[in-house]
Amino acid sequence: MNDQRVPEPTRGFPEQEFATRTDAAQQAMRAQGLDAILVMTEPEVRYFSGFLTPFWQSPTRPWFLVIPATGKPVAVIPAIGAAVMERTWLDDVHTWSSPNPEDEGISILTDVLRGIAAGSKSIGVPMGPETQIRMPLLDFERLKSALPNHSFIDATPIIRELRMTKSETEIGKIGHVCSLMSTVFETLPNFVHTGMSETDIFREFKKAALDQGVDDVAYLVGGVGQGGLEDIISPPSSQQAQAGDILMLDTGATFDGYFCDFDRNYAFGHADDAVKRAYEIVFKATNAGLDAARPGARCEDIFHAMQSVMDAGGALGNDVGRIGHGLGMQLTEWPSHRPGDTTELNSGMVITLEPGMEFVPGKVMVHEENIVIRDGSPELLSRRAPAELPIIG
Amino acid sequence: MNDQRVPEPTRGFPEQEFATRTDAAQQAMRAQGLDAILVMTEPEVRYFSGFLTPFWQSPTRPWFLVIPATGKPVAVIPAIGAAVMERTWLDDVHTWSSPNPEDEGISILTDVLRGIAAGSKSIGVPMGPETQIRMPLLDFERLKSALPNHSFIDATPIIRELRMTKSETEIGKIGHVCSLMSTVFETLPNFVHTGMSETDIFREFKKAALDQGVDDVAYLVGGVGQGGLEDIISPPSSQQAQAGDILMLDTGATFDGYFCDFDRNYAFGHADDAVKRAYEIVFKATNAGLDAARPGARCEDIFHAMQSVMDAGGALGNDVGRIGHGLGMQLTEWPSHRPGDTTELNSGMVITLEPGMEFVPGKVMVHEENIVIRDGSPELLSRRAPAELPIIG
Repeated sequence: MNDQRVPEPTRGFPEQEFATRTDAAQQAMRAQGLDAILVMTEPEVRYFSGFLTPFWQSPTRPWFLVIPATGKPVAVIPAIGAAVMERTWLDDVHTWSSPNPEDEGISILTDVLRGIAAGSKSIGVPMGPETQIRMPLLDFERLKSALPNHSFIDATPIIRELRMTKSETEIGKIGHVCSLMSTVFETLPNFVHTGMSETDIFREFKKAALDQGVDDVAYLVGGVGQGGLEDIISPPSSQQAQAGDILMLDTGATFDGYFCDFDRNYAFGHADDAVKRAYEIVFKATNAGLDAARPGARCEDIFHAMQSVMDAGGALGNDVGRIGHGLGMQLTEWPSHRPGDTTELNSGMVITLEPGMEFVPGKVMVHEENIVIRDGSPELLSRRAPAELPIIG
Repeated sequence: MNDQRVPEPTRGFPEQEFATRTDAAQQAMRAQGLDAILVMTEPEVRYFSGFLTPFWQSPTRPWFLVIPATGKPVAVIPAIGAAVMERTWLDDVHTWSSPNPEDEGISILTDVLRGIAAGSKSIGVPMGPETQIRMPLLDFERLKSALPNHSFIDATPIIRELRMTKSETEIGKIGHVCSLMSTVFETLPNFVHTGMSETDIFREFKKAALDQGVDDVAYLVGGVGQGGLEDIISPPSSQQAQAGDILMLDTGATFDGYFCDFDRNYAFGHADDAVKRAYEIVFKATNAGLDAARPGARCEDIFHAMQSVMDAGGALGNDVGRIGHGLGMQLTEWPSHRPGDTTELNSGMVITLEPGMEFVPGKVMVHEENIVIRDGSPELLSRRAPAELPIIG
């Protein structure tokens, strides 16, 4: 165990935070004439309730949260979750014995929605970009059939708008895990060396992260490649690091349900000039992103600021489709730094800057930092990568 | 690093395994008059392609796999996944630059389905119990509108039937991770002691699992409680273990994309008679489950065999809704040991036996083992829990 651990922020949130979130949702609902919003994915249920459990790994049971026009959200959940949900700020928790495929919560949810949405009978459900219906589609059809006078309307814009701007408490959690993982990356040369396999590097990296104090390393991709990596989403292989290999690790570790998402690059022994130069270009592209990330700027502005540096540096392209995104309860959230995303940044948004480019055919170089938009310059949550590609043994 | 690691099974699968899976799906499709099956969740895409990446953590991009009536599956995926998908057995990989909310793969998918499903125009999509549509619902509606002459039919029974019975290669991967985690549980008294917080116990447990050789500890719940635990899906708290506490840890660790899912119980210092007795009862209930788990038996038979032992032992109930389930590419899979689940077991099914009961008001005791159904007696994949509650320091 590591007894020198950095003190961690208080876990959970004051009840006021959930009241504020719910109130903001209800204001938006009134503006759009919605009687209720129904959410069912892990981050959405947690956002309004504080319900935190890894039990979502099991796909068997659906979980429902209904936000009425006034008052606290109402939970309709499997009985196995009752004890945890009753410790949240909610007062009204309906349960059923699940699994029960014949009626997987649908009749209770129908009753709750009938009781709550008696007005214009419009139920908002997130159905747009980056959302999912986390229940069997046939059950969603059953729900709609049971409520023939209700209309189900896309609530993505409401949820997106709320979740994109983080509270200081949320920023504190993201900043904490960013700080811990910055330390892991800075100390990586102490526990990674030539001859280790990718799988061993991944395992030692995760152990070091746990020792620093993260809850989990939910996401880790990358690996080693001679003169650079070919793709950036592979799981590790038994390939052993050798001199001239580039090591890239991109990680989403968590603290109290909040993610970091950034990467770092290293060279084993030595690096050729093409790699060093690519590293410098994406480092400079990140600087351009930091300069552009101001309240009022649009995500496509951030894109162009970073991409123009990479284009001038001879970038051959990028198959990622964006060079940065939102970050918080999920590894990636709205918005995206890409042409056409006109989302305006505002103070409190937590985003990644993730310039990446193919620098010779088949080899990619990606940098990533996590920042929070502030009035004036953004605040770095990850500690800045070194300006020159680090060489390790 | 642990240099005494158990040798691991070969990663991945021979191409023949994917061909066999695809052929079995196609036979079932013919029997039901389906021209194609469309899948889009992580396990379903991986089952037919071998596409393995943790990148699914990002909710931004959908991934599609189309199984035609004959021939190999066809992938329609974001360009970022092309390099990994092209290393699978597939020949036909269509990509688009994602994220692109205006057309998130829908037009390419429409073209692929139009080209493939020219016959009776029936497209199977899993829409039933334990499935999800992993794409924005509005995009699914767009897809249906773009294919007005096609019908979309529930394909859950086909996928469920295929995935429930595992190949020997799959069983080898599950067995490997079960064996590694059995060792972690058996050696737990070496690294867990009175005075540690739940969060520290969780971290040390995960590190020990990584040292044994698992890829990840994707799921870990439980904790400590005086005289027993109150719920079994909580994340860890700062509560410190003290004499008289029961420690329960329930874990889903992974190797090469396959899960174990079992728990173990310990007492710090001493345990009262009620706990010891509850432990013995659920241990005996597991024995009854092992005796009942034969080819031809139904899941509800397994339920009654175990539940009758717990009822006779004074069980006060259980809010889990079942006492065991399928296991494999997901932490939990079909079927469920519960009244009304008439699924017949057959050789090659990997299931958990998970008898649990409230033994005094508010305190639960749960045991879990992972087994594979064989002709005759089942084969234990987890090494059996001790017959008596282990006392640790």
